[in-house]
Amino acid sequence: MLKEIRRSLPGEDLLYLGDTARVPYGSRSPATVERYSLNMARFLVERGVKMLVVACNTASAVALTALRETYELPVIGVIRPGAEQAVAASRNHRIGVIGTRATILSGAYERAIRALNGSAHVVVKPCPLFVPLAEEGWVDDAVTRLVAERYLSPLTELDIDTLVLGCTHYPILKKVIASVLSPDMSIVDSAEATAAAVKQILASSGLLKSMGELPGELEIFVTDAPEGTVRVASRFFSEPIAQVRYIDL
Amino acid sequence: MLKEIRRSLPGEDLLYLGDTARVPYGSRSPATVERYSLNMARFLVERGVKMLVVACNTASAVALTALRETYELPVIGVIRPGAEQAVAASRNHRIGVIGTRATILSGAYERAIRALNGSAHVVVKPCPLFVPLAEEGWVDDAVTRLVAERYLSPLTELDIDTLVLGCTHYPILKKVIASVLSPDMSIVDSAEATAAAVKQILASSGLLKSMGELPGELEIFVTDAPEGTVRVASRFFSEPIAQVRYIDL
Repeated sequence: MLKEIRRSLPGEDLLYLGDTARVPYGSRSPATVERYSLNMARFLVERGVKMLVVACNTASAVALTALRETYELPVIGVIRPGAEQAVAASRNHRIGVIGTRATILSGAYERAIRALNGSAHVVVKPCPLFVPLAEEGWVDDAVTRLVAERYLSPLTELDIDTLVLGCTHYPILKKVIASVLSPDMSIVDSAEATAAAVKQILASSGLLKSMGELPGELEIFVTDAPEGTVRVASRFFSEPIAQVRYIDL
Repeated sequence: MLKEIRRSLPGEDLLYLGDTARVPYGSRSPATVERYSLNMARFLVERGVKMLVVACNTASAVALTALRETYELPVIGVIRPGAEQAVAASRNHRIGVIGTRATILSGAYERAIRALNGSAHVVVKPCPLFVPLAEEGWVDDAVTRLVAERYLSPLTELDIDTLVLGCTHYPILKKVIASVLSPDMSIVDSAEATAAAVKQILASSGLLKSMGELPGELEIFVTDAPEGTVRVASRFFSEPIAQVRYIDL
């Protein structure tokens, strides 16, 4: 997500805050995800950001309303852009969505997709092991392939032509996920669609930074600093991460 | 652990607090695990407990000293009882330990085992996927078996005769873990050893409750109340769990 926003808006200054002390959000209750999201947003708002991007499907699915009610600035999540891309991609209006347990239980993708296309049929499947597999780095791996087959084979029998990767970790496993699906399945990663929406919102609000001072600053903060954060950060972002700063929230 | 303490000390009142809002601890830094452990302990101490059992290997590995410095009451972790049981079980003094990344990185098991037997050889292996696999309920499962083979086959070549399950989730996977090891491997689950140590400490401190009012009370608290907590709780404890109370820490 950071990567796509950086590519789409190279002049903007970006503050990235990762809640490494309290991830994964995907197995928590909506009340807790909302509380943590508000807590995270306050840190960024206090540092003067002009817009909030909720770069997590679980937080987007359950905390967007609370964030918008609490803060004045534009707040964008990843669900709506992903739903738009899925509806545009699907020809038979049968769309699959995979994500964490919390995202799937929230029903956020069904609502967003049906709001765009009332006749769409949406099938969902939580895939809780994909995040720990991605974090273990078992990306091109027989175990991950077996897990993907287990999770996704029920979906392949339901005649969907589009699958939304409804968790920001899942694109890391895209190759394995694609390998167990039909070769003509459209796979939607909401990061690019969200980056495009961020640009559009900034432009329409007159908040876009004038270019010329490339590249913009990039500051990365985490709530915990375990062994290996910089290594994982470099896997997620495609520029070398010089410094990750720890903050106590 | 709760199950073993309940069996060993049926007359004692037990307060169990699970940090479901912030698990898993095993991938976090020592500083964060220590902070969360102190925060959790305060809740129990304020409710008047006479002893603290740290029923988590990661918290035992990194937060025991801070807990003992902060609170006056007896504090016991699971590492020392597990190490004692392993040293007693091993005939060739070659002991394997599996656990979370944080537990393994701490070196706590090596220190505890070598303090008991200076000539013991200890080999360690973090197994980060075992917790999510246990939580997914894939207990008697081909995927879990494949993961266990991947993690444990390097250990089997090192001539160990004893393996410590250094994470409270791992006993759920004991059957699969045993199936990829030599049939005469001693597998150490520290829960029973810890329960015995708890009884001994209470007895020697004159804190043991007089019997006669069986069974003692059991109160269960969690910091998050997601869908399925009661289901998971019933899998871990072997008595039906009537009520799990949510507290905001």
